[in-house]
Amino acid sequence: MDFQNILNIIYKDCQGQANSGKVANYIPELAKVDPQKFGMCLVTKDLKHYQVGHSQELFSIQSIVKVFSLCIAKEYLGDALWKRVSVEPSGTPFNSLTELERENGIPRNPFINAGAIVVTDALLSILEQPKRDFLKFVRQLAGDSSISYNHEVAQSESDHGYRNTALTNYMKALGNIDNSPEAVLDLYYHMCSLEMSCEQLAKTFLVFANQGKLPATHQELISPKSAKRINAIMQTCGFYDEAGEFAYKVGLPGKSGVGGGIVAVHPDAYAVAVWSPRLNKKGNSVLGISALESLTSLSGLSVF
Amino acid sequence: MDFQNILNIIYKDCQGQANSGKVANYIPELAKVDPQKFGMCLVTKDLKHYQVGHSQELFSIQSIVKVFSLCIAKEYLGDALWKRVSVEPSGTPFNSLTELERENGIPRNPFINAGAIVVTDALLSILEQPKRDFLKFVRQLAGDSSISYNHEVAQSESDHGYRNTALTNYMKALGNIDNSPEAVLDLYYHMCSLEMSCEQLAKTFLVFANQGKLPATHQELISPKSAKRINAIMQTCGFYDEAGEFAYKVGLPGKSGVGGGIVAVHPDAYAVAVWSPRLNKKGNSVLGISALESLTSLSGLSVF
Amino acid sequence: MDFQNILNIIYKDCQGQANSGKVANYIPELAKVDPQKFGMCLVTKDLKHYQVGHSQELFSIQSIVKVFSLCIAKEYLGDALWKRVSVEPSGTPFNSLTELERENGIPRNPFINAGAIVVTDALLSILEQPKRDFLKFVRQLAGDSSISYNHEVAQSESDHGYRNTALTNYMKALGNIDNSPEAVLDLYYHMCSLEMSCEQLAKTFLVFANQGKLPATHQELISPKSAKRINAIMQTCGFYDEAGEFAYKVGLPGKSGVGGGIVAVHPDAYAVAVWSPRLNKKGNSVLGISALESLTSLSGLSVF
Amino acid sequence: MDFQNILNIIYKDCQGQANSGKVANYIPELAKVDPQKFGMCLVTKDLKHYQVGHSQELFSIQSIVKVFSLCIAKEYLGDALWKRVSVEPSGTPFNSLTELERENGIPRNPFINAGAIVVTDALLSILEQPKRDFLKFVRQLAGDSSISYNHEVAQSESDHGYRNTALTNYMKALGNIDNSPEAVLDLYYHMCSLEMSCEQLAKTFLVFANQGKLPATHQELISPKSAKRINAIMQTCGFYDEAGEFAYKVGLPGKSGVGGGIVAVHPDAYAVAVWSPRLNKKGNSVLGISALESLTSLSGLSVF
Repeated sequence: MDFQNILNIIYKDCQGQANSGKVANYIPELAKVDPQKFGMCLVTKDLKHYQVGHSQELFSIQSIVKVFSLCIAKEYLGDALWKRVSVEPSGTPFNSLTELERENGIPRNPFINAGAIVVTDALLSILEQPKRDFLKFVRQLAGDSSISYNHEVAQSESDHGYRNTALTNYMKALGNIDNSPEAVLDLYYHMCSLEMSCEQLAKTFLVFANQGKLPATHQELISPKSAKRINAIMQTCGFYDEAGEFAYKVGLPGKSGVGGGIVAVHPDAYAVAVWSPRLNKKGNSVLGISALESLTSLSGLSVF
Repeated sequence: MDFQNILNIIYKDCQGQANSGKVANYIPELAKVDPQKFGMCLVTKDLKHYQVGHSQELFSIQSIVKVFSLCIAKEYLGDALWKRVSVEPSGTPFNSLTELERENGIPRNPFINAGAIVVTDALLSILEQPKRDFLKFVRQLAGDSSISYNHEVAQSESDHGYRNTALTNYMKALGNIDNSPEAVLDLYYHMCSLEMSCEQLAKTFLVFANQGKLPATHQELISPKSAKRINAIMQTCGFYDEAGEFAYKVGLPGKSGVGGGIVAVHPDAYAVAVWSPRLNKKGNSVLGISALESLTSLSGLSVF
Repeated sequence: MDFQNILNIIYKDCQGQANSGKVANYIPELAKVDPQKFGMCLVTKDLKHYQVGHSQELFSIQSIVKVFSLCIAKEYLGDALWKRVSVEPSGTPFNSLTELERENGIPRNPFINAGAIVVTDALLSILEQPKRDFLKFVRQLAGDSSISYNHEVAQSESDHGYRNTALTNYMKALGNIDNSPEAVLDLYYHMCSLEMSCEQLAKTFLVFANQGKLPATHQELISPKSAKRINAIMQTCGFYDEAGEFAYKVGLPGKSGVGGGIVAVHPDAYAVAVWSPRLNKKGNSVLGISALESLTSLSGLSVF
Repeated sequence: MDFQNILNIIYKDCQGQANSGKVANYIPELAKVDPQKFGMCLVTKDLKHYQVGHSQELFSIQSIVKVFSLCIAKEYLGDALWKRVSVEPSGTPFNSLTELERENGIPRNPFINAGAIVVTDALLSILEQPKRDFLKFVRQLAGDSSISYNHEVAQSESDHGYRNTALTNYMKALGNIDNSPEAVLDLYYHMCSLEMSCEQLAKTFLVFANQGKLPATHQELISPKSAKRINAIMQTCGFYDEAGEFAYKVGLPGKSGVGGGIVAVHPDAYAVAVWSPRLNKKGNSVLGISALESLTSLSGLSVF
């Protein structure tokens, strides 16, 4: 499969596309990114790299980080984790309180904000030095020790995070948060502030295309069963209220973030990351989804 | 892959399992089925058949039929269909009215009752002789002209179908039903009353594992793109409020019915049908899910 | 208190008011009424009549009839009625299905459509010849045997009543309707089709201002306790999702209908009916509310 | 009317009643109150006092305070207040987030927690020294300078107030809170911690039975129109999800608190306060409601 050619076609197409969508602007740090940025990188299981555009430029990965935090919590807690958070797709936006009330404080899945906050609360109890240990895990996945938090972004999220404060306190009231809401949110905002490039993200997500092993060293970081199951959760829950549409159009498990990044995985084949900051109304990158739809159409490959 | 051996193991395991779950009893015709029945049949793309138990016995396929009706409506209407029904997983049970009110009469997906009723309404406008033409399509998919409606089951569903009458009239009020509610429900209940065996179902669903072509004749009944996309919808929406759990445990696109049947598809590999009438609280076959989970665990094969 | 003078002032004011609001148009029979009609009639406990405008012209009383049906059901069933319908104000529009799903088929109160349909179902079981007996009761209240159903309006409601069909079938599915949905709705639509004038309505509602007795004959048609309690329900539930606003502005128990009528009661003093067909977004007469607000402001009398 | 005799009868009846209901226990300070306490005091417009039981013992007035805060905000802001909070009864429990999400951050009424928090936010912007000025207003209403906050109760509410923190932050996110959530909640908890006796409460609420004037001095503290309208809001919204039931059974405007107190007003006649700490499932005093129902039954007087 000539992936470089396919990426070149996609890149050219994206260049010509209308500039629909809006850059996330709820914090100043995200609003000031150049909306024209576009990068894409695909890495195969045998570590061949294909890339176009600003694929090596750092951006705020935001909700993509929820996949990493889920990995750690799942490894430590096993299926006990599912008593605190379900794995069902959500029928409402990513930060809805209604659903949480209906489900009595048990978030629908670990990729909506409420669910990721519960996972973060679990990490806070599990990890010895949560921020340091979490960063170490991501660096290990990526094989890259330069990856870091952006403390300004974390602070800004905290300053504007009234809705997440609401979600966290509500779950605390319902008994599904063990630590103090402030401590949980501090860790959560730091995790979301991680900055990575498309290339780093694609390399990092290869572990899910490789049954839980780091392709470079063959070290098993997560169990094959966990890798498969996290793919399943990405497939059904990775795009908030647009998960069905993404499965329909693209046909790969994946996860998006409001920084404009999307990562997708073709099990046993490759991981791919794309970045374009303009978002649709559901909070997912417009060109990101379009590029991945082209990728599976042009390659004829998807999980379905 | 020695599928027969795997099916034998599963069959033995299922025999020993506790009899949890309850046979659907909202109509007498479904309630009188023997709860101990268990059949399973897997057919590969190259038409090898593997089966155990009551795999050739007919049962009421119920909601599994929604995949067939979607196929026809999608072929005729293309993407125009998506103006009347979405493809997002539903956060509520299969017959909820709340969600329909929130979404202003546009059902979340074609596999919840409301969505399937909209698809049925479309078929009523599309097909010349709806009942006859629909049956013809299913028989063609199965390569088996013996498949038939059970008119008693259809009548009984109609006699007890107050909730579906509510859903249909509500969507009519909101402008999303073209024909008379009575005519739509009559066709809907007939479609749901189809009786098929595990073997027939597995053969029928091979079209989704074979890019839209009938494996026996290589005739393209639906486009490769449609086949892929219907698989995606089965993955995200095929099990009502348990779609995430099914993806997580089994990792294959599939569709269940309250008759106790489940069909699943491994694209480019096989289709598999299982039947066991005892249902869990979400309306899916307890042993059916368990058997399919064993299948993908023992074979090591899933889409993820 | 010089009520005639107050009514004259109100009448003059209303004449000059902007024509906001829209005549109900979901059935042709209601849509063709002249939007400029305005009538008002106040009758005191000692049977003094005060009126202005088209106060003797007949109009479709629609939901105002729900007070009469509640009276009969309450007299026959006593507090057993409250097992099937609550007396709490509704937080949603008059024909919402969401609330009904949340409350498991028990309508919030007897004045939203779902609640009135349950009451109608009760009447169908209670009354020997429901349509005849119900009409007899209303004529007795009004002391006027000319009051009649409008069969064309009833038929037209039936032809367009998909949402009420949905509500009724949904409650039937949940076990809160005893008779056939068709029979219940036929009676319901006939009751809503009653035609009365402001003068007739005011006279009829005097029974609630007079502790359950007909002022003319002192015959006790309903118990004093029931009269008081139906006033309470009118106060908290008489205006759909605008009950709080009406209590706030007007301060009297009352009931509105989409025909543009509103009746209100000042216990131990008077009953008043007003008619103006233009409705606000919540389905209540714009000038009707305004006129009653003026009445309690100018007279300085309200229950609060 | 021999109110003392009626109160004696009620007192005796209540003594014999089964001890259903549970003392509020979400904070230790409320949990330790003696569940057998019962007091009742009625004060007429001409300042005659009738009382039984522990009518002079202080208890935590909790949500009853919401009537006082509404008074001040309404006087300062007039109808502009209604842009930030509605006056419609709520169809859900007093601390629901679902409704708030549906209504886009505008609470249904000033007596559910969310609404009272918005009113508190308004007071924080209006009053020069909010805690001092608010206390001054209540003392003036009561003609009693001994009334004080209980700082321990306020602190304890704050320590356990995750759900109120959630509500406040959620409204802040939606733009309906001007001040910091912490400052708003600090004032809110202090206001709720006020301790008063039945006698003090009855005296204080006389202002609503006397068209806004202090009966002792004839000073107009609030306008007659405001007094009438606050009565209307008490009638439709004073008992959370039990407002309809209270209107139905008792037929007076009133307000309850989880400390077990209820105050009710008969316009132009009297104010009455009752205290019994055991609450029903909706958070209202069991014996309190029962006592007031007896009062209006035995006296034959209610607004309806």
